[in-house]
Amino acid sequence: MKWHELSEQHCSVARSLAVVGDRWTLLILRDLFLGARRFETIRDSLGLSRTILAERLSLLEAEGVLRRKPYQEKPLRHEYHLTGKGIDLYPVIMFLLRWGDRYYAGDQGPPVVQHHLACGHDFTPELHCSECGEPVSPFETRPRAGEGFPQLAALLSPDD
Amino acid sequence: MKWHELSEQHCSVARSLAVVGDRWTLLILRDLFLGARRFETIRDSLGLSRTILAERLSLLEAEGVLRRKPYQEKPLRHEYHLTGKGIDLYPVIMFLLRWGDRYYAGDQGPPVVQHHLACGHDFTPELHCSECGEPVSPFETRPRAGEGFPQLAALLSPDD
Repeated sequence: MKWHELSEQHCSVARSLAVVGDRWTLLILRDLFLGARRFETIRDSLGLSRTILAERLSLLEAEGVLRRKPYQEKPLRHEYHLTGKGIDLYPVIMFLLRWGDRYYAGDQGPPVVQHHLACGHDFTPELHCSECGEPVSPFETRPRAGEGFPQLAALLSPDD
Repeated sequence: MKWHELSEQHCSVARSLAVVGDRWTLLILRDLFLGARRFETIRDSLGLSRTILAERLSLLEAEGVLRRKPYQEKPLRHEYHLTGKGIDLYPVIMFLLRWGDRYYAGDQGPPVVQHHLACGHDFTPELHCSECGEPVSPFETRPRAGEGFPQLAALLSPDD
């Protein structure tokens, strides 16, 4: 299977990854969530080539994850702002951060601390259930095939 | 910057992505969370080459994200099980799923529905604060530089 075929796969993870599954793209999103807006700021932060950064930003714009806003006319320059669709990726980035903090933070502890303005405390993200509001453990959930995902049946019949 | 240097970057997202930032790897993790255990099951599900799948599984085993357990002796065959470290990636996969459901599900609706056994309802994941237990909006949080992340200072000084 080629990567461009991924978006045709009947799985929301596959479809998501066809857009944001590139490592540079996820780091670009991290920078945007941390407040970066300009091409040079992101490029300096990641140390990647102008070509790769421009490509990734174009894809994200084409997919409606971010939009460009001019901030200077001569020469014309743009800033990059997350759209609502882009902001909805916040939990993905937050949980990647938390996982890295837990397993790869090193002696100095987490490089970035998140503060919850609403309650006034530093916090870590938790996954809760939309229905009962309680924390969800992966051992307390069961995936069920929706329509149109034939591959899932094979996966949901455990091998053992 | 080369990808092998990413794990040296002082950012937990970068370090996480050096391990799981590959698209195939995230799809392999999805399959493991859905219940797949065996090489051929995952290969059939994703349609990727044996070489790529073996490489990705080796990296995940080396990083302690999964472990191999023999299930047959002649010839020797292994199953792949998520470790605690692997299971901690559950929220990342769940929020990628939710994002894909929201923006790419198509007419038939979400291909996989998640059921919360503890409360008995189908649910979607929500990000809550570890301290106050309330849902967290990205507009109510502020990242703060921890020690040892010099790049963050530039990002946290907004361009505009």
